[in-house]
Amino acid sequence: MTNAAERIQHAGLRQKIISAEQAAALIENGMTVGISGFTGAGYPKAVPAAIAEKAQAAHAAGKPFKIRMITGASTADECDGVLARANAISFRSPFQSDPTLRNQINAGDAAYMDVHLSHIEQQVRAGFFGDMDVALVEVAGITADGKLIPSLAVGTNVTWLQKAKKVILEVNAQQNAKLEGMADIYDSIGLAPHRKPIPLTEAGERIATPYLHCDLDKIAGIVLTDASDRNSKFADPDEMSKSIAAQIIDFFSHEVKMGRLPANLLPLQSGVGNVANAVLAGLQDGPFDNLTGYTEVLQDGMLDLILSGKMVSASATALSFSPEALERFNKHIDELRSKIILRPQEITNNPELIRRLGIIGMNAMIEADIYGNVNSTHIMGTRMMNGIGGSGDFARNAYLSFFVSPSVAKGGAISCIVPMVSHHDHTEHDVMVLVTEQGLADLRGKSPRERARLIIDNCAHPDYRDALRDYFDRAEKAGGLHTPHLLNEALSWHQRFVETGDMRVK
Amino acid sequence: MTNAAERIQHAGLRQKIISAEQAAALIENGMTVGISGFTGAGYPKAVPAAIAEKAQAAHAAGKPFKIRMITGASTADECDGVLARANAISFRSPFQSDPTLRNQINAGDAAYMDVHLSHIEQQVRAGFFGDMDVALVEVAGITADGKLIPSLAVGTNVTWLQKAKKVILEVNAQQNAKLEGMADIYDSIGLAPHRKPIPLTEAGERIATPYLHCDLDKIAGIVLTDASDRNSKFADPDEMSKSIAAQIIDFFSHEVKMGRLPANLLPLQSGVGNVANAVLAGLQDGPFDNLTGYTEVLQDGMLDLILSGKMVSASATALSFSPEALERFNKHIDELRSKIILRPQEITNNPELIRRLGIIGMNAMIEADIYGNVNSTHIMGTRMMNGIGGSGDFARNAYLSFFVSPSVAKGGAISCIVPMVSHHDHTEHDVMVLVTEQGLADLRGKSPRERARLIIDNCAHPDYRDALRDYFDRAEKAGGLHTPHLLNEALSWHQRFVETGDMRVK
Repeated sequence: MTNAAERIQHAGLRQKIISAEQAAALIENGMTVGISGFTGAGYPKAVPAAIAEKAQAAHAAGKPFKIRMITGASTADECDGVLARANAISFRSPFQSDPTLRNQINAGDAAYMDVHLSHIEQQVRAGFFGDMDVALVEVAGITADGKLIPSLAVGTNVTWLQKAKKVILEVNAQQNAKLEGMADIYDSIGLAPHRKPIPLTEAGERIATPYLHCDLDKIAGIVLTDASDRNSKFADPDEMSKSIAAQIIDFFSHEVKMGRLPANLLPLQSGVGNVANAVLAGLQDGPFDNLTGYTEVLQDGMLDLILSGKMVSASATALSFSPEALERFNKHIDELRSKIILRPQEITNNPELIRRLGIIGMNAMIEADIYGNVNSTHIMGTRMMNGIGGSGDFARNAYLSFFVSPSVAKGGAISCIVPMVSHHDHTEHDVMVLVTEQGLADLRGKSPRERARLIIDNCAHPDYRDALRDYFDRAEKAGGLHTPHLLNEALSWHQRFVETGDMRVK
Repeated sequence: MTNAAERIQHAGLRQKIISAEQAAALIENGMTVGISGFTGAGYPKAVPAAIAEKAQAAHAAGKPFKIRMITGASTADECDGVLARANAISFRSPFQSDPTLRNQINAGDAAYMDVHLSHIEQQVRAGFFGDMDVALVEVAGITADGKLIPSLAVGTNVTWLQKAKKVILEVNAQQNAKLEGMADIYDSIGLAPHRKPIPLTEAGERIATPYLHCDLDKIAGIVLTDASDRNSKFADPDEMSKSIAAQIIDFFSHEVKMGRLPANLLPLQSGVGNVANAVLAGLQDGPFDNLTGYTEVLQDGMLDLILSGKMVSASATALSFSPEALERFNKHIDELRSKIILRPQEITNNPELIRRLGIIGMNAMIEADIYGNVNSTHIMGTRMMNGIGGSGDFARNAYLSFFVSPSVAKGGAISCIVPMVSHHDHTEHDVMVLVTEQGLADLRGKSPRERARLIIDNCAHPDYRDALRDYFDRAEKAGGLHTPHLLNEALSWHQRFVETGDMRVK
């Protein structure tokens, strides 16, 4: 019996161990498959490659083979990547970040629907995506009575296990067996008209059981694996990120002084990536203690706040670490098990809870415009980057919503502050504070023209400030003075970049 | 003692009766004033005119006089109108619909911040709009122990009474005294980190008391009035509205058949206006019984569903009737008092509750684009119409979110389906079903290009269909195939209208 087989304590389920190829045989062309995984954690490691092989064999034989794939969020090369390279994905939702798949989406070869991460489970349960044929879910183990021990991401697993007609599990021996007890799986949200309040009132509270439930009769097979998650490395915070972080921390201090934030702030949500990580790293040396986290993805920065004692608890739907942070996590897991709570993404991203808890939402953006609209998803208005993820869930419902970005990209050829964003993910109604390394614009309580002056003066890169002022001045002269725009110029910066590779006029 | 004075049962408060002019004397230049009123109901009838006179006198003497005015939603000519004509408004939030004020906003003479109606109270309580100097609130009466009986709109009154340093009440004898007991004033939402679940689990449930609470020491004066609300007349449903209504009702029937809606549907939210009213009128003869309403504004159509027995209860923050419907309401108020529940707008529009109850949200729009983004607020991208109101609260959190509009406006010169909306209030992520008199596009579970084909084929007016297809075809050829656009043409239809008065190429 392998190490992974020992993770299956339920005798009957041990009988269901099959190979990845046998599992792939259960997946047919055209099926909708609900797959586990969130930000490179907790995705299946073996079956996707077997499905990809099956697809390639079918294609070689002149037969169609593609699946409709719905996950928690992004997975990794062994899942999205291998399936995309085999041309095995016809439809994808709600979030992805794989380079091959992204190219297919932007070439029109794969359809993608970008959905708020708090919405996807409800919409699937309600049948808005049709039937779910198979769920393919990684777990860390199975108890003697058949309860599933979540892996490093809970994501949409509750719903996929409930909704799918058949279930394939991957039991991954490389996930720490001591994860048992860390998760808090509230699985009774259901659908209206039978819903009750979700009883969570503190970010660190537990309200349910640590196990995922699955009707054991639906389990069509269990595949054993022993493979690590994506575990991407973080860059050390650079000057750019440190500057953004320092401004946010100053802003927090000011809000505490004004009585608009408690001394230990409010639960922190932090988007994925280096800038977000830098903000959390900055809090390590900041004046705030007894912090709490309530976020989608817990990464290195938040782990270190917990380990240092600055943060008392953190709630997340996925743990996505660098290899070094994963080592620290595994070393301290006995202490961390009570301080980190892994929840379904329908809980971490739930508008009810984000609003109630008064989350401070901090998310990265591709660009913002002078009125505070934010584009989180599209390059030059047409090409999908990754997806909106949970940024809308947090920005809309947060007590304070921040969007951060360096003020320029591509060596200065792209301004992240533009006259009009080329795609709107977060409207002027949902964006409270914009921060670049140039400065911070506090947009609360301000009209569009007041916002425009602030954003241009405080956030835009000096190389673009005059051009933005010129646009705004001429738009004001053209009339329509609530939100002045020149419609035939509003998107011209993006068009210029498409044509010349530079937003600046040469 | 006047009829209105009899409405003040509290002896001490009767001593505080003052004239509108005395009340206006309490308002100084630059003050932030929280004013009651929601969609032409429950706004103060006398003091605004007195403030306007004070402003005019100040201006005549060469002195500045403007107030910052925050309400529930729109008021009426006697409030927004009279103050705007006196140039007495420097800043306005969160929603308005007065023609004079709208012109001032679009001329740059008044600043306006367009805020989700569920957000405004929280942001004011948190201090994001600074101090609130005075609250000016209409009530229907005051009990012997000093509790306030809400008028026909609750709106933001809970928060304005809590937050303002001073309170001026208007007691309006023309509001039906039998309103006492109709409202359900849950006033303990507060701010994080001390929040609890809002215990509402059914649209028609009562969870609190029927009275507004105010610290009596803060009451600086009470003004007696005897004046009716705006009571705008509705147009009888025309063929256009009837067609949109019939399609929505067919869609409901289909969803019930598919098991995606219960036989009595889910609680209905309906935006303001003739099309919304037509949908509700259509339900009068539809196959659905035991309907429930959970909406911001209860208008004629929903009242008649209750009176006919088709709808068992309706929750709203304002009752805004035509004169005829108001008569029916007053005639049947003893029966209606238990079936209609007037709540704070922070409750009617709360994301926690809209999500939990599974509301069906139906809202009007100015325009939608081929990818399903919706503009609810701006004319040709720059000029504010009224504001986003609660449409975002509902669209984002609803179980089903509809946006409706005739397919053309201005005699065909404006297409309501455009290549790209000129302002984004609801993004592609929040719009499930678009309906025009031409047809319905069910966007659920579809990628942007699938949505585009559906919207063009089903919703666009035939006069614009070829031009939309041509745009979409050429955008696809240009690449960027997730959301194909031609950036230098995306807003050209609006620019053409600005230049020629017609979106069509002549």
